[in-house]
Amino acid sequence: MAKLKPRTLAGFMELLPAPQQQMERIMQTLRETYSLYGFTPLDTPIIEDAQILLAKGGGETEKQIYRFQKGDSDLALRFDLTVPLAKYVAMNYGQLTFPFRRYQIGKVYRGERPQRGRYREFYQADIDIIGDGKLDIANEAEIPSIIYQTFSRLGLKRFQIRVNNRKILNGFYEILGLTEQSQEVMRTVDKLDKIGPKAVRDILVDDIAVAPETADEVLNFIAIKGTNTEVLSALESYKGKSATFDKGLEELTTVTRYLAAFGVPEENFAVDLTIARGLDYYTGTVYETVILDHPEVGSVCSGGRYDNLAGYYTDKPLPGVGISIGLTRLFFVLNDQKMLNDAVPTAPAEVLVVPMSAEQQGYAISVATQLRASGIRTQLYTEQKKFKAKINYAVKLGIPYAMFLGETEEQEQVVAIKDLGKGEQVTVKLEDAVAIVKEYLEKTKEIPSIVE
Amino acid sequence: MAKLKPRTLAGFMELLPAPQQQMERIMQTLRETYSLYGFTPLDTPIIEDAQILLAKGGGETEKQIYRFQKGDSDLALRFDLTVPLAKYVAMNYGQLTFPFRRYQIGKVYRGERPQRGRYREFYQADIDIIGDGKLDIANEAEIPSIIYQTFSRLGLKRFQIRVNNRKILNGFYEILGLTEQSQEVMRTVDKLDKIGPKAVRDILVDDIAVAPETADEVLNFIAIKGTNTEVLSALESYKGKSATFDKGLEELTTVTRYLAAFGVPEENFAVDLTIARGLDYYTGTVYETVILDHPEVGSVCSGGRYDNLAGYYTDKPLPGVGISIGLTRLFFVLNDQKMLNDAVPTAPAEVLVVPMSAEQQGYAISVATQLRASGIRTQLYTEQKKFKAKINYAVKLGIPYAMFLGETEEQEQVVAIKDLGKGEQVTVKLEDAVAIVKEYLEKTKEIPSIVE
Repeated sequence: MAKLKPRTLAGFMELLPAPQQQMERIMQTLRETYSLYGFTPLDTPIIEDAQILLAKGGGETEKQIYRFQKGDSDLALRFDLTVPLAKYVAMNYGQLTFPFRRYQIGKVYRGERPQRGRYREFYQADIDIIGDGKLDIANEAEIPSIIYQTFSRLGLKRFQIRVNNRKILNGFYEILGLTEQSQEVMRTVDKLDKIGPKAVRDILVDDIAVAPETADEVLNFIAIKGTNTEVLSALESYKGKSATFDKGLEELTTVTRYLAAFGVPEENFAVDLTIARGLDYYTGTVYETVILDHPEVGSVCSGGRYDNLAGYYTDKPLPGVGISIGLTRLFFVLNDQKMLNDAVPTAPAEVLVVPMSAEQQGYAISVATQLRASGIRTQLYTEQKKFKAKINYAVKLGIPYAMFLGETEEQEQVVAIKDLGKGEQVTVKLEDAVAIVKEYLEKTKEIPSIVE
Repeated sequence: MAKLKPRTLAGFMELLPAPQQQMERIMQTLRETYSLYGFTPLDTPIIEDAQILLAKGGGETEKQIYRFQKGDSDLALRFDLTVPLAKYVAMNYGQLTFPFRRYQIGKVYRGERPQRGRYREFYQADIDIIGDGKLDIANEAEIPSIIYQTFSRLGLKRFQIRVNNRKILNGFYEILGLTEQSQEVMRTVDKLDKIGPKAVRDILVDDIAVAPETADEVLNFIAIKGTNTEVLSALESYKGKSATFDKGLEELTTVTRYLAAFGVPEENFAVDLTIARGLDYYTGTVYETVILDHPEVGSVCSGGRYDNLAGYYTDKPLPGVGISIGLTRLFFVLNDQKMLNDAVPTAPAEVLVVPMSAEQQGYAISVATQLRASGIRTQLYTEQKKFKAKINYAVKLGIPYAMFLGETEEQEQVVAIKDLGKGEQVTVKLEDAVAIVKEYLEKTKEIPSIVE
């Protein structure tokens, strides 16, 4: 029969077993951390009615949507986890308890041109807190503290959560009389890191028709740097000219103060007036997170406060705050930068149980069953192969312990356990072997996913 | 603005937070159990090249496939996890270590007509062991022992794994000279439970042109019942007439013997000669699993031994054995039959931390941070609401403990912790409160997902 060459589509991440284990560990850390903060897991369909999913319509994203007919249905694959959340909350409003905290880790689809580190199918890992009509500012401080916990638990130290407040920006542009052009101005300011202040000024003046002295004011404003206290003090000088600005400054001050209470160290957190987040959607605190040694990667965790989650589906005002980690891209970057920790165990088992001959099969099964009952991941090697092939199997997979069971071991009801890393072998009772493996397991628990 | 009525497509399961927590617990049990047996997790794309996915082509399934164009690409959503596994193993053959054991829990798509309990998007939870050229029979006994463990850990007791061997069936039909009609005969025999022996005989004789005395032989054969030992003894009488039959009987006898060694009780396991599994694909041991009190549900976990996993993609012989749990359907059935255990905690947190006024916000944040550091899922309630609304929030979500922090508590560095189930409140040091919650957590760990 003619064979079809097996392949996986470009732009779709499919990992070999060892890196998949690393990915699983990262996902598990996210699930655990999000759960510790009282977020409930959700799982919404990957396929939605295209009308519902694209209620917002238009924009860059629409071209990238996977949209297709099946029978009479106009279907689309979700392109983020926010629109499905909006649908879910609007649809189940009466059955949910607010503030509603949910996390979702799931695949989303965007038909971007595949390129290095860009995926068409990728995981997002989102948390959101949705209020019913109102939502306290404290939530806007808790969110970055969760980002801090998440990345810290993954093993990252040199990262920075950058925080701003859209009301400060909107208020500032109001003071300058630039409210109408504010979207364009913010988009231009967002290019500061890439093109520098001179080019930003040129675009402001030449393309957006901002008066030269006003453009200078904009540049002065976004040039405000320093410690969080210094930046906040510098902002005091703009007070009293715009209610929106004043409200934003009050919120940002509160968020900064709470963050200390949440135990987020000053070095992992910076008030940064250049952060705007493109979307109109955000109305208060906004976040970006950068890996300090790899600023070229851009933000690995972004989000912010919004006033109206589900305006397309319901009249109910549903303010919220949330963040999203682009997990597939993050994993690609960590791998690419050699930041995935090699010390993380990637073997499918802790113990390979090897009966020395067919006679010990029964004893081997009984030993494997007891190991599993003790919570030890165990493989039973039953193939008819040479002894060396059996050892090689364990070594290739990185299984740390082999357990050899021969006639003598069975008679004496003991096991010969070999530490394949150290090459040391001892013959002990099964319960002692269990203790050895459990000690190993305890040590590996603490190994972080990421190294710097 | 006109609102769009939010809806989820028919045939797509989307759960409210409490049942979602039950689903998560079941998935976690599957992941843990599969891992204990040395299976490594895989995650393949949901979208594949349609040519690759449909290499096998034809059949009932093809009509149900979600297939669509995106740009120049002919794409399809996976309809099971076996074809993607075949692709993966063929593609990564040189980088995998055999026997290759993988589990995958993932969504698959079939455009069936939506009806009660049938889903278009549903989870499958698969395990497979793939050999390189050969695979020992012991694996065929280990697989049902994993099914046994999985369902036992979920809390199910009254279930039965039914086992047969395709070589026995093929050999038997060879003995009767029915090899060419064997597919049709097996399909008819499969209806035995629904239509009874008389109707089966009629179809065999009238529609498939089986000689009446041969039809009687078939009915006698599938009427063989009894304990596993009795069934195996009855089969001895057919020995010596077909090498295929003899091989099948030897395999089934070995599997039965090993199963006892794996600790599977006789009541959860039956040799059943009516089990055939429709697909041509299977060549040895085949499995079905029924919930004894709900036989109408059909098999909740099926699979078997196959000789050629990836014949469409590679010349390499890749024999294997695997099973699949239709998780979404299983969840539907369990819910429908009131077999999901109400006692499983579905709250998003163990503790709701409630500062009595804004002054205690800082203390509340510090307490919540310490609870989380102890591994206790904690929500901080910061909304400006009446005391009763705060309590109601915890009660509605089923959060078992509320912690009240007022001026006195802060001054004395203690917490007032209330068991919302019992209504009892004590004021203690935080470490003692942690101990109370941890004790609760230990107890809930053992609660099974399923009750009978």
